[in-house]
Amino acid sequence: VFEVNWNAEAAEKGGYEHFMLKEIYEQPKAVRDTVMPRIAKDNLSVVLDELKWNKEYLDSFHKIFIVACGTAYHAGLVGKYYIEKLARIPVELDIASEFRYRDPIVDEHTLVIVISQSGETIDTLAALKETKRLGAKTLAITNVVGSSIARDADEVIYTWAGPEIAVASTKAYTTQLVTMFLLAMYMAGIKKCISADRTEQLLKQLRELPAQIDRTLEDTEPIKTFAKQYGFNEDVFFIGRSLDYNVALEGALKLKEISYIHAEAYAAGELKHGTLALIIKGVPVIALATQKSVYEKTISNIKEIKARDAVVIGITSENNNDLIKCVDHVIKVPATDELLIPLLTVVPLQLLAYYAAITRGCDVDKPRNLAKSVTVE
Amino acid sequence: VFEVNWNAEAAEKGGYEHFMLKEIYEQPKAVRDTVMPRIAKDNLSVVLDELKWNKEYLDSFHKIFIVACGTAYHAGLVGKYYIEKLARIPVELDIASEFRYRDPIVDEHTLVIVISQSGETIDTLAALKETKRLGAKTLAITNVVGSSIARDADEVIYTWAGPEIAVASTKAYTTQLVTMFLLAMYMAGIKKCISADRTEQLLKQLRELPAQIDRTLEDTEPIKTFAKQYGFNEDVFFIGRSLDYNVALEGALKLKEISYIHAEAYAAGELKHGTLALIIKGVPVIALATQKSVYEKTISNIKEIKARDAVVIGITSENNNDLIKCVDHVIKVPATDELLIPLLTVVPLQLLAYYAAITRGCDVDKPRNLAKSVTVE
Repeated sequence: VFEVNWNAEAAEKGGYEHFMLKEIYEQPKAVRDTVMPRIAKDNLSVVLDELKWNKEYLDSFHKIFIVACGTAYHAGLVGKYYIEKLARIPVELDIASEFRYRDPIVDEHTLVIVISQSGETIDTLAALKETKRLGAKTLAITNVVGSSIARDADEVIYTWAGPEIAVASTKAYTTQLVTMFLLAMYMAGIKKCISADRTEQLLKQLRELPAQIDRTLEDTEPIKTFAKQYGFNEDVFFIGRSLDYNVALEGALKLKEISYIHAEAYAAGELKHGTLALIIKGVPVIALATQKSVYEKTISNIKEIKARDAVVIGITSENNNDLIKCVDHVIKVPATDELLIPLLTVVPLQLLAYYAAITRGCDVDKPRNLAKSVTVE
Repeated sequence: VFEVNWNAEAAEKGGYEHFMLKEIYEQPKAVRDTVMPRIAKDNLSVVLDELKWNKEYLDSFHKIFIVACGTAYHAGLVGKYYIEKLARIPVELDIASEFRYRDPIVDEHTLVIVISQSGETIDTLAALKETKRLGAKTLAITNVVGSSIARDADEVIYTWAGPEIAVASTKAYTTQLVTMFLLAMYMAGIKKCISADRTEQLLKQLRELPAQIDRTLEDTEPIKTFAKQYGFNEDVFFIGRSLDYNVALEGALKLKEISYIHAEAYAAGELKHGTLALIIKGVPVIALATQKSVYEKTISNIKEIKARDAVVIGITSENNNDLIKCVDHVIKVPATDELLIPLLTVVPLQLLAYYAAITRGCDVDKPRNLAKSVTVE
């Protein structure tokens, strides 16, 4: 018997017009519930009581695979970045429907992390079973206690997002992101490849995140205006580099799913290798520019786009006063460590997708052709 | 002083309306020149005199990175598949403009393969320099003798495509593909993880390829018709799984680059995770279905798309009489081993992009906003 951790009432719309909007606004709570019990009081370590890992166990892995679909795959992209950056363990990411059929090189020295909100995603479940058979250790990150993936994996870390009803995933994504961050910090702690100072600094900022997400949700008027202004364009592009690119992919997917705009995200450095041909006068481009190490390069890509008279909406941190000089509009999010800023920049992209769909008269909670969980192939 | 292996005359259009079309038609020769000197007479081994590798050297690598941009990145996708499948060495692929800034986990146990037609691609060159500095061994696959990348890499394998003038790469891609195949076979031979029978079978089929590419170029009337019929659509989707997905990405890029159609390729299994929302009545979808292990799954994705009344052009092998039952049109290519079929399926996609651009009156050889080689960031 598995305990179900929510009830029917909790799944109601609670005054919001759509489940999706309600769930966007639940993100501060969802992130808080997922994160707070897992930060030590002194901010010096991550507490993951679900796992009993030590250095020997972690060193037994030559490699980590992250396997997922859709939005969870986008969370995996950020997770790969976190683990490689903080814990310096190589991570390979794959789409579950590709991974399971490609005879992957997996053995007992492999850790396979699967991510699925529902815990029932068929391709992810199949990938999990197949890698277990090959001898890998498996860890599930899921939102549903007692789901198939939770039961089949060797270990589980739950996201505490509460029930997600809207087809377009929002709070599941942000809780998956912080879970990947917690996991990467946990690994880095075990491997002692992060200093106490840096740990404290990051975990303090992690504690601030829920309140900061709240702040990004306060003034949505500019986003509603953009949605009305550009919501009838049939093509929208998203660009960014590094973590900004990963968030751009998720922003584009949201817009596709519920507004049916043909949105596509590019790694900004790839533009010149072909896709710049699609950038013409008036095309809306959403450019994320939050990562210091690639900031100047991103600005130079934005200038190329502006030279083609595209309309650029820049997304950056509130302490950036520079981006506005080369874009048409800027959306700012609260300042935090650049590792954590994806948790903030994704929020205006979710809202933009929501209000674009409203502008276009789409059925936000039940987009055409899509189901909430893909439980058949 | 570096020898330049072609002359101005060889770079002329030779009766073709555009360099791109000429270069598409040069593929049988380009592939032949790249492949033939590297197959042993008895078809039992690959001869890569450029490399003097032995088992000890190969075993010293825990991992291979392939780093490239644009079309060369798409060749890298296929290369990853070849090396993992045939030589069972883990390969990670990355976009050069992302890789170079992400503090990659690279050391003396890493082999870094960079792919660049021109050998001057700035991000790829920078990635090469950075990984050398970190102690990795480096191997370049390039088309230009004496180029910066050829000079900087520890070792080089040249593609013998001859000068490629059109901005949209065609014969460089196919020669990169066969080069990756030769390299994977060479590695598999050293590791003794492929049987003599299988080697002979694959190398015999590799010998047939140039003539088979010639056959795909013989009757282009159906492709011209499709280009006229669907060339004015503003959105086109490509789907496939496994190697078919990799080719789909390249097909979509060609169409974007020269016809400015917003083309996008999806791993077919990812459709239900969001992008199926964009598939509506009349939207052209190009579906590649050549890979046995995922064939039934792809067919089931095609049926979902047909249920939304999209127009589906299927691409498969000439011995497939089944695909026509569930699509609107079929383009068939000669039968070969499924590892090699990307060399054939990409040809109709190149032609489709070319004739779509002609239909739309685009300047094929000089697409807007794009340069042949990206030598500045």
